[in-house]
Amino acid sequence: MKNAIVGQSGGPTSVINSSLAGVFEAARDRGAGHVYGMLHGVQGLLQDKYVDLGDYLKSSLDIELLKRTPSSYLGSCRYKLPELNDESGKEAYEKIMKLLDRLDIGLFFYIGGNDSMDTINKLALYGKKTGSDIRFIGVPKTIDNDLCVTDHTPGYGSAAKYIGSVMKEIIRDATVYGTNYVTIVEIMGRNAGWLTAAAALAKSEDCEGVDMICLPEVPFHVDRFVEKVKRMQAQKPSVVIAVSEGVKLEDGRYVCELADDVHAVDAFGHKALTGTARFLCNTVAKELKTKTRSIEFSTLQRCAGHLASRTDITEAYQVGGAAVKAAAEGHTGEMVALKRISNAPYQCTTELHPISEVANLEKKVPLEWVSEDHTQMLAPFIEYAMPLIQAELTPIYVSGLPHHIYLDKA
Amino acid sequence: MKNAIVGQSGGPTSVINSSLAGVFEAARDRGAGHVYGMLHGVQGLLQDKYVDLGDYLKSSLDIELLKRTPSSYLGSCRYKLPELNDESGKEAYEKIMKLLDRLDIGLFFYIGGNDSMDTINKLALYGKKTGSDIRFIGVPKTIDNDLCVTDHTPGYGSAAKYIGSVMKEIIRDATVYGTNYVTIVEIMGRNAGWLTAAAALAKSEDCEGVDMICLPEVPFHVDRFVEKVKRMQAQKPSVVIAVSEGVKLEDGRYVCELADDVHAVDAFGHKALTGTARFLCNTVAKELKTKTRSIEFSTLQRCAGHLASRTDITEAYQVGGAAVKAAAEGHTGEMVALKRISNAPYQCTTELHPISEVANLEKKVPLEWVSEDHTQMLAPFIEYAMPLIQAELTPIYVSGLPHHIYLDKA
Repeated sequence: MKNAIVGQSGGPTSVINSSLAGVFEAARDRGAGHVYGMLHGVQGLLQDKYVDLGDYLKSSLDIELLKRTPSSYLGSCRYKLPELNDESGKEAYEKIMKLLDRLDIGLFFYIGGNDSMDTINKLALYGKKTGSDIRFIGVPKTIDNDLCVTDHTPGYGSAAKYIGSVMKEIIRDATVYGTNYVTIVEIMGRNAGWLTAAAALAKSEDCEGVDMICLPEVPFHVDRFVEKVKRMQAQKPSVVIAVSEGVKLEDGRYVCELADDVHAVDAFGHKALTGTARFLCNTVAKELKTKTRSIEFSTLQRCAGHLASRTDITEAYQVGGAAVKAAAEGHTGEMVALKRISNAPYQCTTELHPISEVANLEKKVPLEWVSEDHTQMLAPFIEYAMPLIQAELTPIYVSGLPHHIYLDKA
Repeated sequence: MKNAIVGQSGGPTSVINSSLAGVFEAARDRGAGHVYGMLHGVQGLLQDKYVDLGDYLKSSLDIELLKRTPSSYLGSCRYKLPELNDESGKEAYEKIMKLLDRLDIGLFFYIGGNDSMDTINKLALYGKKTGSDIRFIGVPKTIDNDLCVTDHTPGYGSAAKYIGSVMKEIIRDATVYGTNYVTIVEIMGRNAGWLTAAAALAKSEDCEGVDMICLPEVPFHVDRFVEKVKRMQAQKPSVVIAVSEGVKLEDGRYVCELADDVHAVDAFGHKALTGTARFLCNTVAKELKTKTRSIEFSTLQRCAGHLASRTDITEAYQVGGAAVKAAAEGHTGEMVALKRISNAPYQCTTELHPISEVANLEKKVPLEWVSEDHTQMLAPFIEYAMPLIQAELTPIYVSGLPHHIYLDKA
């Protein structure tokens, strides 16, 4: 059997390294002599940056630590390969294929979201065109849960568990003085509200839950929002609201664009969607004369490895293994997807889908899962999300802090 | 033996309810017929709001849940009793004493920080003046760790463990693209930098640690800060900085006051000290043309019960028990303090101090524990803080989320 190579791409998650562990162990089990890891995805590969993972993952303890280490062990990138019909981009493909040949690669795995699947799609098409026998398989991950064809994405369950858990703690904290208090929590998700919806999981026999959930799928009206908060606060002094960073007005503008302070710009020149909760808090404070607090979960929601879902970690590992199986059996240009068999008991298996059904597409929260007044998630969402946050994998604590495995990429 | 009453006051912590459990169980063990709980501290007591804790804490499981429930189970307040020599305030004291007599109270416990100890001080003095035989004992808690006479305060260890753990996760996340990136994390502490200093705990064999720590004890210079960041980023692309919400310029203005956007005002009319990290990120982004991200730990650092330190939970329970012992033995007007016996092995006991040595005073981080260039904590701080974050008390997970015990106070 030839060698394998694996890369990680796009935003990190708490369990993306569990998929790496799944690929690594399955490829070794199936006889790959070397399993290489791209440093910073294909962008690093184009600069000849890779490691032989066998030099770094030497024991079962290393694998256990890898499963518990958040963010991308190999480093990540946000790099799009040139279009295939773009002559000036030919060089990139030729360079990658030459390197893969030199490393005697037969299996190529890319762990990522919809942008990263675009990479697998292009490489698989290029490989087919040039008669390469390398198999290119996509391994899904994203906290956003916005990938098509898969029931859910590895990474989402842990982010949802974090959001549900911390929301319960915030609700306890926010009610402590018994005074009028509006807490607005800003949650990631530019276009899809899966993460914000997870705030609904906080409602339980020991917790009154959040009072309002604002998804990016639902047009946002600032005035109606303030009205709703006012009505809610007339019933109970502490009102806790989960709002997506991506909520938009009917005219398409992001709510955070209404704020007049300086906005950071990200590496791609996109305006950072931050400040939604802060803007809404300022508005509510002015209109309703109540104390407010805005909380941004920021990167914490995607890197809280200490609170990962064991279900999620296990499934992340499984999709890695299933990708190796698929490639070894001759598949290419496909992505492993999770297919739910049943909710009670929760059972889930993997299947393969052509990568073209996934790349660059987005799956949103179905509006039938949202209450008529757009403030709460309905039972179908809870039934969907609840199995994904079940069980824990205890961190390995060293000197009182969760221990990780760390690859110095410099 | 007469009955006991206990209240919680000031900002919540992850382990404040462990002290409540300690008071409750010790008071029952020593024969108190009833242990009452004030709802929302003395402010609630003045409105006749209290419960008989025995009606709510009925099993050992309830106690275990109480130890794992963040925020104040009984509710809290930020209420200061009138000055003793203020004639117009006499009514409040008379009302409290009348209620305490009606409930046949012999022991009065108040769990709180330096403001709350002012309440115990005044009640003890009033009790003495009026010949009451009620014993008033203070039980320390505050994440800020700024109480005098006690080696450290219950609540600090868990907040420090949270900060150290999450900082490690943030550092992993921030290095993932290998690109220029400045992350500034804002940590609570208006005048004392104990919490911000805890970011230093992230440095370990699997983590490069934070690059700079900015305490409120050290005057802040925006220009020099930007210069330092520039120098650091020339060495490594990802720079992670922990900054106290309370950093001040040499002229005494808070750094966050330099930001031009609207500021929230808290329940007491204090300008909320938030936005320091955001302002610094905007400044750095403008000056250094780097991507930046500001993260505020906000209330998460004081309510993350799921990541509490077992050492902290245990000590919080112990100070509660020691308070009952002290009161039962006739002490009044004193606070239980933690006294460290040794670091290796870590040993800690309790002692009593007159409340006047604590009330309204603040303990700051000694500047000898900070490096000469004011960017890092030195070994004495690590030796001081490390024992406080050791060990865990696994949350009791129900439906995938940490379970709490909840008292409906409405």
